[in-house]
Amino acid sequence: MPSFAADALRTLVSDIAVAAGTPADIAALLADSLVAANLAGHDSHGVLRMPPYCGSIDKGDILPGVRAEVLERKLATARIEGGWGWGQAAMHLATDVAIERAREHGLGAAIVHNCYHIGRAAPYVEKVARNGMIGLIMANAGAAVAPFGGRERVLGTNPVAWAMPRAEGTPPLAFDIATAGIAEGKLRVARAKGETVAPGLLVTSDGKPTIDPDDFFAGGAILPFGGHKGNGFSLLAQMLGVGLMGASGHRFRGPLGVNGPIIVVIDISLFTELDHFIDEIEAQCARIKQSAPAEGVEQVYLPGEIELLTEAQRSRDGIPIPESTWAELAATADRYGVARPEPLTGAVSA
Amino acid sequence: MPSFAADALRTLVSDIAVAAGTPADIAALLADSLVAANLAGHDSHGVLRMPPYCGSIDKGDILPGVRAEVLERKLATARIEGGWGWGQAAMHLATDVAIERAREHGLGAAIVHNCYHIGRAAPYVEKVARNGMIGLIMANAGAAVAPFGGRERVLGTNPVAWAMPRAEGTPPLAFDIATAGIAEGKLRVARAKGETVAPGLLVTSDGKPTIDPDDFFAGGAILPFGGHKGNGFSLLAQMLGVGLMGASGHRFRGPLGVNGPIIVVIDISLFTELDHFIDEIEAQCARIKQSAPAEGVEQVYLPGEIELLTEAQRSRDGIPIPESTWAELAATADRYGVARPEPLTGAVSA
Repeated sequence: MPSFAADALRTLVSDIAVAAGTPADIAALLADSLVAANLAGHDSHGVLRMPPYCGSIDKGDILPGVRAEVLERKLATARIEGGWGWGQAAMHLATDVAIERAREHGLGAAIVHNCYHIGRAAPYVEKVARNGMIGLIMANAGAAVAPFGGRERVLGTNPVAWAMPRAEGTPPLAFDIATAGIAEGKLRVARAKGETVAPGLLVTSDGKPTIDPDDFFAGGAILPFGGHKGNGFSLLAQMLGVGLMGASGHRFRGPLGVNGPIIVVIDISLFTELDHFIDEIEAQCARIKQSAPAEGVEQVYLPGEIELLTEAQRSRDGIPIPESTWAELAATADRYGVARPEPLTGAVSA
Repeated sequence: MPSFAADALRTLVSDIAVAAGTPADIAALLADSLVAANLAGHDSHGVLRMPPYCGSIDKGDILPGVRAEVLERKLATARIEGGWGWGQAAMHLATDVAIERAREHGLGAAIVHNCYHIGRAAPYVEKVARNGMIGLIMANAGAAVAPFGGRERVLGTNPVAWAMPRAEGTPPLAFDIATAGIAEGKLRVARAKGETVAPGLLVTSDGKPTIDPDDFFAGGAILPFGGHKGNGFSLLAQMLGVGLMGASGHRFRGPLGVNGPIIVVIDISLFTELDHFIDEIEAQCARIKQSAPAEGVEQVYLPGEIELLTEAQRSRDGIPIPESTWAELAATADRYGVARPEPLTGAVSA
């Protein structure tokens, strides 16, 4: 499999986005979002999204020239109008405004109306953490998940992410998941390879448990992670997206999904000194890392730790891109007259 | 098994608390908290707590005469001093102040320092919802849970709860869980009955998976619900409790656990009209309730729905109290010279 330097992929994504009508600064945010997901090892949210994003531009689902705007600031809260521009840019604006609100009020929150796919959620809350605050993001998405005990696609994969600061020089402690038991992207990969998935993740369209990813694409549903408990977190994201933003029903456009995100920011310094908070967090992190692992486990990981290890390795060795993904990216580059990067290692077909 | 009227149990708890030195208004809050848990079907948080609470008073872990106070209001936030009085009263004060902060700033949050056990968390966020707002509570607790991949007791059972308003006349939509895979109280019940628990909930002290509750009491640990995903929610509650409140280590006193709670309140009206929000929530609830169940499931339940059904039944038929729980309650009543209630149905031994 060929591997590419992160910078080369950033340039590729950004060049395609600009050629498709995206302002340069927004194209850079988009490229950062996708390549950061690859670096973290979450290829499902990486550069493989760019060709279908371009398809969404063709269909008018993404309006690449639209710039998100602050609709209203009110006390600790704000509402952002995404205007069906790039969700990543809208979400960065929401994050910045929520931080600003928290500086003024101690807490801040922002929502985004008419928001296309925001990509991987961790970078937004990590930005909050780098500002010495705690960030929490929840978003709903197009229906793919059955409620606990059900079989119909009613809920989205509904991501939840949080981050908080650690000691100077240490990246934030960050957690980022889909409340679905498995990502739709991973089902696509399993189906392509003819593999099954773990039990407890899927139901068929007539409500039987299944491990065959084909059953999902034949009208079945993903289940929430963690039974009725995970279901409750999926529902919280769903209800906030639908209730606060009206992000539901016909307003969910495009196969890549649209999000209804809220970001909440807590200014630590109103509760305790930031240095004291960080000391306590470091002590907890040390306690967890030093705790004995279960049988068959090498070590206990903190949330986000595997992502940081993957990022270090891929920054050094390049980001592996499967041939099929590369073929789609190369075709998209050609279509927009954008130069294809050379791989760092491995060869690509012409 | 004898059953008692909710009112009779409230009077019993309140009378004992007053006899033990609790101000009458706080005793009423405590009685409401415990009996509401029984009514909801969560007996592990019900009146069976009263005898060990009295043991905690004897040891000086609970100071029943102490009244929680607001230490500081700052912008959207507040800090409450629990002073090792009743956690339920401290948490009601935190809830009221967080609602007040949210009315002023759009968002509100309050934490409680030196907080004894807050009991079941749902009633606090339900109070927020009855004020037309969204409530979210998280708390850490004494170590009983291993981190994902681990075997040492590092995390608490760390509850998370949320609630939001529904249409006039309909109780709030409410969700309340422990992020531990199983409650310690349920392990005690299983051990007493000589039963095993489901796989995936426990590890032995040397890190092997087990279904034997004895292994927990022999130094093993409970696992978080939902693998690494549930682990991340447990960690969020843990880090907030330790980092913001200093609720950790030697400060966790007593076998019943102490909590480090934060409550966050979102004023819906800053984002959209409350009526519109409720319409959207009702439509989502209807969509979920009307969705087809999985094979072998009779119907899909909303969070909190089973609790409401249990409450209706127990309000009518009484709250069943096992003989062993009754014996402890009766002995506690006798010790404080408080009248024992008569059962609604069934007989009790003298």
